[in-house]
Amino acid sequence: MSGKKVTFSDIADYTHFSKTTISRYFNNPEYLTPENRKIIEDALKALNYQENKIGRILAKGETELIGIIMPSMYMPYYSDVFQSILNQYTDFGYKFIVLSGDSNKRREENYIRELLSYNIEGLIILSHTLPSSELAALGVPVVTIEREDRFISSVNTDNLMGGIQAASLLYQNQCDAYFFIDIPVCPETPGYNRLVGFQTICRDKKLPNELYIQELGKGIENNYRGIGRIIDAIEMRHSDQKVGIFCANDTFAVLVEKYYFQRYRIIGRHYCLVGYDNSSIATEAIVPFSSVGQQTDVIARETMEILIGQIKKRRKDPECRLPVEHKVVTPILKRRDTSLPELY
Amino acid sequence: MSGKKVTFSDIADYTHFSKTTISRYFNNPEYLTPENRKIIEDALKALNYQENKIGRILAKGETELIGIIMPSMYMPYYSDVFQSILNQYTDFGYKFIVLSGDSNKRREENYIRELLSYNIEGLIILSHTLPSSELAALGVPVVTIEREDRFISSVNTDNLMGGIQAASLLYQNQCDAYFFIDIPVCPETPGYNRLVGFQTICRDKKLPNELYIQELGKGIENNYRGIGRIIDAIEMRHSDQKVGIFCANDTFAVLVEKYYFQRYRIIGRHYCLVGYDNSSIATEAIVPFSSVGQQTDVIARETMEILIGQIKKRRKDPECRLPVEHKVVTPILKRRDTSLPELY
Repeated sequence: MSGKKVTFSDIADYTHFSKTTISRYFNNPEYLTPENRKIIEDALKALNYQENKIGRILAKGETELIGIIMPSMYMPYYSDVFQSILNQYTDFGYKFIVLSGDSNKRREENYIRELLSYNIEGLIILSHTLPSSELAALGVPVVTIEREDRFISSVNTDNLMGGIQAASLLYQNQCDAYFFIDIPVCPETPGYNRLVGFQTICRDKKLPNELYIQELGKGIENNYRGIGRIIDAIEMRHSDQKVGIFCANDTFAVLVEKYYFQRYRIIGRHYCLVGYDNSSIATEAIVPFSSVGQQTDVIARETMEILIGQIKKRRKDPECRLPVEHKVVTPILKRRDTSLPELY
Repeated sequence: MSGKKVTFSDIADYTHFSKTTISRYFNNPEYLTPENRKIIEDALKALNYQENKIGRILAKGETELIGIIMPSMYMPYYSDVFQSILNQYTDFGYKFIVLSGDSNKRREENYIRELLSYNIEGLIILSHTLPSSELAALGVPVVTIEREDRFISSVNTDNLMGGIQAASLLYQNQCDAYFFIDIPVCPETPGYNRLVGFQTICRDKKLPNELYIQELGKGIENNYRGIGRIIDAIEMRHSDQKVGIFCANDTFAVLVEKYYFQRYRIIGRHYCLVGYDNSSIATEAIVPFSSVGQQTDVIARETMEILIGQIKKRRKDPECRLPVEHKVVTPILKRRDTSLPELY
């Protein structure tokens, strides 16, 4: 790997072919015999030739670039999904330009404009701020993950099933009272169905339940204080009962476990806990808790398949209408013995 | 934002200026009066003009693209640093093309070749596999973070100071025996100095100490088993003493806390624990532990400053020799009362 630029002339000199032949190798290799292709290939290696994709892009308009708009990676779920998307490079060859929006609508609009100026061929949206109607109007293939998706393609976990699995597990543990903890989420967001799934089971089985849907502030400290207020409210009226708690993400769940220990000196008994995402913190927790797992590798692959399909359509016909495709990925409940009753 | 391409002709028609004037607006705006610039500016908005950076890139060779090679984001430290780098976009305007190497040398060489083919102007290396001699030969500005950096620029936390802070804190807690836990790291890696700092304090204060430097395998489960073997070995000989444990990262520390609870039913007494990175898991842990914090926002900013400085040099003189700059960022020890002695 060297910094010096190797030109077509250099390759021609080295191989004793004409520059036309070298150019043909890059643009119409089928005109060359396999032997001659091999000679040029070897020369490229010997000369450490550095392909100039920007040139090729101008010729064909195929940048092989996909833009990603990320929210902040505070929740481990986002770095899990992001890592899974990056891993798709080996199969699809597309490269990712990544911008992080910090949930500022105006800023994200600028980010998208900036990405489009690089002739990205597609866009993956993981942030919340822009309505799908606006994203659909961009004119490039867009896939969103776990976001409002009325007018654009999406890949989502089956959140309803996730909520059902979580509530069913609590029910199997024969809790006396059932609780759901989340921040306010609008019904158009796929994650809203975690709540609906929880309610479905509670209604079917006639389980006493309460929803704690509250703003918890930004950052762990604020989240922890908010979770603490909720647990105190629960304990005020249910301290003599076995409580079943379903948190809409693992971060809230780990804070529930922490608060029970710090405030009540209780670890893993009296309550039964289920988180969502099955991220590493569910395993690392001092008493590992059950969690509804999202198959981030499947989600990433489905996302790329939709995107590449639409990109190919666009390459054939730049004016074609893009279909709106929705894929749903099965959640996988990871059971861990949160309650460890025999140990106390 | 619309998908239809707006051309210079469209802008000329709309503003009743000539195409030459429009072109001048983009390439030599100083030739236009402020009034005329304003008219064209308003027209661009009205027409929803989408700038084509690829065109500008070809003209000036300034892609404003920086490549990032990431390792897997298993440790929260990497997503913290990565997030901090993404945040630099608002100040520097450079965009990041990100590839994840999974510690495969050959694959990472291909990634870099691919990035260079997009005429990236600089490269940030967070993975371990490529020696700095090879990276220096690439011919683009390269900055590495917490990696072997003999021949390239780098930004590192003062790891020696970090090790000293951690061991000093254990010493203040008057432990009877002192332990350092890490996987094998070569002495050229900046992080090696965490060990050196620990040893410095142990030697100065004549503290009985042992190093547990062992391969712990991949993934949390393997790490947990490995940590378990180490804690068992420590407890076999020090169960009646207060042990001080310094882990080279927070993930190992959280697993120490978990193992002590799961195996010995001990939480936060008997041992005193210090991690490294001060990532969110140190706060979320059921007994939050002390940790040597890396200032990832400062690290990211210093990285960009070195990189942009070198990119500007290169824009002026493409053949110029790049300086090798090393910046060191102060670690910040976050003290948390790991031992909570009054509570037991």
